[in-house]
Amino acid sequence: MSQLSTRHLLGIKDISENDIQLIFETADNFKDVLNRPIKKVPSLRDITIANIFFENSTRTRLSFELAEKRLSADVINFSSSNSSVKKGETLIDTVNNILSMKVDMVVMRHASPGAPHFLSKNIQANVVNAGDGTHEHPTQALLDAFSIREKLGDVAGKKVAIIGDILHSRVALSNIFCLQKLGAEVMVCGPITLLPKHIDSLGVKVEYDVQKALEWCDVANVLRIQLERQQIKYFPSLREYSLYFGINKKMLDRLGKKIVIMHPGPINRGVEMNSDVADGEHSIILQQVENGVAIRMAVLYLLAGAK
Amino acid sequence: MSQLSTRHLLGIKDISENDIQLIFETADNFKDVLNRPIKKVPSLRDITIANIFFENSTRTRLSFELAEKRLSADVINFSSSNSSVKKGETLIDTVNNILSMKVDMVVMRHASPGAPHFLSKNIQANVVNAGDGTHEHPTQALLDAFSIREKLGDVAGKKVAIIGDILHSRVALSNIFCLQKLGAEVMVCGPITLLPKHIDSLGVKVEYDVQKALEWCDVANVLRIQLERQQIKYFPSLREYSLYFGINKKMLDRLGKKIVIMHPGPINRGVEMNSDVADGEHSIILQQVENGVAIRMAVLYLLAGAK
Amino acid sequence: MSQLSTRHLLGIKDISENDIQLIFETADNFKDVLNRPIKKVPSLRDITIANIFFENSTRTRLSFELAEKRLSADVINFSSSNSSVKKGETLIDTVNNILSMKVDMVVMRHASPGAPHFLSKNIQANVVNAGDGTHEHPTQALLDAFSIREKLGDVAGKKVAIIGDILHSRVALSNIFCLQKLGAEVMVCGPITLLPKHIDSLGVKVEYDVQKALEWCDVANVLRIQLERQQIKYFPSLREYSLYFGINKKMLDRLGKKIVIMHPGPINRGVEMNSDVADGEHSIILQQVENGVAIRMAVLYLLAGAK
Repeated sequence: MSQLSTRHLLGIKDISENDIQLIFETADNFKDVLNRPIKKVPSLRDITIANIFFENSTRTRLSFELAEKRLSADVINFSSSNSSVKKGETLIDTVNNILSMKVDMVVMRHASPGAPHFLSKNIQANVVNAGDGTHEHPTQALLDAFSIREKLGDVAGKKVAIIGDILHSRVALSNIFCLQKLGAEVMVCGPITLLPKHIDSLGVKVEYDVQKALEWCDVANVLRIQLERQQIKYFPSLREYSLYFGINKKMLDRLGKKIVIMHPGPINRGVEMNSDVADGEHSIILQQVENGVAIRMAVLYLLAGAK
Repeated sequence: MSQLSTRHLLGIKDISENDIQLIFETADNFKDVLNRPIKKVPSLRDITIANIFFENSTRTRLSFELAEKRLSADVINFSSSNSSVKKGETLIDTVNNILSMKVDMVVMRHASPGAPHFLSKNIQANVVNAGDGTHEHPTQALLDAFSIREKLGDVAGKKVAIIGDILHSRVALSNIFCLQKLGAEVMVCGPITLLPKHIDSLGVKVEYDVQKALEWCDVANVLRIQLERQQIKYFPSLREYSLYFGINKKMLDRLGKKIVIMHPGPINRGVEMNSDVADGEHSIILQQVENGVAIRMAVLYLLAGAK
Repeated sequence: MSQLSTRHLLGIKDISENDIQLIFETADNFKDVLNRPIKKVPSLRDITIANIFFENSTRTRLSFELAEKRLSADVINFSSSNSSVKKGETLIDTVNNILSMKVDMVVMRHASPGAPHFLSKNIQANVVNAGDGTHEHPTQALLDAFSIREKLGDVAGKKVAIIGDILHSRVALSNIFCLQKLGAEVMVCGPITLLPKHIDSLGVKVEYDVQKALEWCDVANVLRIQLERQQIKYFPSLREYSLYFGINKKMLDRLGKKIVIMHPGPINRGVEMNSDVADGEHSIILQQVENGVAIRMAVLYLLAGAK
């Protein structure tokens, strides 16, 4: 159990519970490192990692870059805004070019589901999926589950409600896979227009009343409403969404138990949750960010060893 | 006097003359380093610095990045153009995220006056203000005063005229504070529409005739006309500005003394000064740029020690 | 012959055959390094290189950045999209600023022919032209010739056809100079509207029938049609271009000999060549990319020694 069963991290669907536990144990060690004055280790010295982001991202890119630099890797960044993709190049050509430059690892975010899988079949380097469209975002799911384990001791047996825009979220799908593999019960909750049609095939409970979801769960993972996709017409308006699904402190006080509040960020304050929830005692949102660096260090470290 | 009185450099207003002198003495040492074949020192090895620029900048960002790399720090860059800020995230959330990633120092440029102050109250990392709107730009003021000290031996007792768009300039305010703390006399000179209303409270002379300003001063620090803000209606046209306030060599020759010409860049040649002034014998504009790296190395080095 | 005859690499026109051979021999060594598990050498430790890209580029910038990092140089990037150039600064001022920051080497791409030459006359640092408008792109020509040498043993005596948009291509001109200096015969082939008017002065054969060009040559270097410049009216449409000049496998099969297919990328698949050519047995397109890193390491290494 000291090695991953895979050379790539493309999605949670493809990895085993053993893989997840190994990543968590490795992240435990790196989290200790991050709390020392000297946060750098020489593990990936002489390894070159390319961060290829075809979509905007602050936190995911920064988190990966920090993880890479703390492992002493050499880091190359490029984002679509200044790349040849605008010149009409195909993904396979972009990727082949990177391959030919003999980069050791590629961290990729892409708008098309499956793009990193396609890449991994055509490249010697290890590939980490940093989000492929509305499909998977495995390191986010890992850091979310890791944060639950840290807060509640274990993930197995816990009830986790994923609340919000399930349809447009790559975080939701990866979370469902990850939590189920670790033995949690999962519920999704949101307006029916924001749930995917295949939701019944995923083995999750479905709830349309957010207060009932909060009553049921130990952990509420509240997703971001995709403001940038608001042109879609069947969408509830932000005001409607906030009215029916937004979470505020009163709703939590009414529960008679303490639940854990999570959010993958960036938060739309006043839409999916109010500031009294985001910044309140139930929230582990910032711990999620901190754990993100440790989880990504663990993933990169283990994949580099899996060559 | 071997430590700064502050953990952050937010503005010149907040620091003491002793702090400024300590920064200058440290910068003297780093300037020696920059003139050696090997320009790198290991001082900030294992320190991670995030350069967060919410506004465009060539020289300030490059200057900081060079300073950081020559101190052997690990450097993470992000600019607003590829960040979550576009997704509607609040500043406090962006900042909390960076905090949670355990970055050691943050260098920030932001369009809102006070943004870095707000940041410094909510973050463990050391914060350096790289320009907050039209408010302060402390490292620019320090490098300007350092360049005067280098050229004229001392700042105390010198007469410095700041000429141009005082209203839209963060350089002007920081310069006034810095020069006054070091014992210089300060004059501002520009069209009345480009002077701030509170100018009388700053303890500076005000002059509307640029030739008279040049006659009075030992040093003319000529500011940039903000071409990119030209939509403002009460602005003199560039042609008018250049006619009444633009500096050319004839005007300097007429003085009967040598004054020092400075400019924080980027220069609009032919507007605030002609090329015969910018590139002439009076100009120390390029020394300012060179000193910028040394000053920023000193500031980062001292703040890292002030933890 | 162990040193370049120049402190800058501005164009192939300016360097000697000896220079080119020295670069190739040095690149041979670095190519060995790139095939080792540890791809990094300490050669340019303590050297700071600024990559200044005033035009978009994926592969060239990445290739230089990888070359620099594998030589252990410190790397500073800036692209025009977040620079002061937008504020109306002149090139000389941008450049003087970089000079004053004491960068050791500058790699520059610029839309204006001659920009790096201008830079080199005004700066202490070594300058590498990474493409100046439609003028030269010397490292591309070097890696192309190096790839021919690798595939066919030698460049001298070989027949090379450069096919496509010669007029808008900086690759074409540098390739012609490089191949001629190394003793190859060069033909250009493309629609008459995409050939430069001064083509007769370059000492190359001109051919308007692509099948005849393929029959003549040992190597076909197929250039990219500049999709992004399509507004030009006298241009053949892409459909016309593809019909008359696009290369497919049938055309190669008809030849009765094996020729080498090259392309500097990014490829417009289905326009200048079909995928059965780009990915076929004749293609050395990905070797070109791989060789690009080795060639750039060699150029940077040799220039650093030529101070």
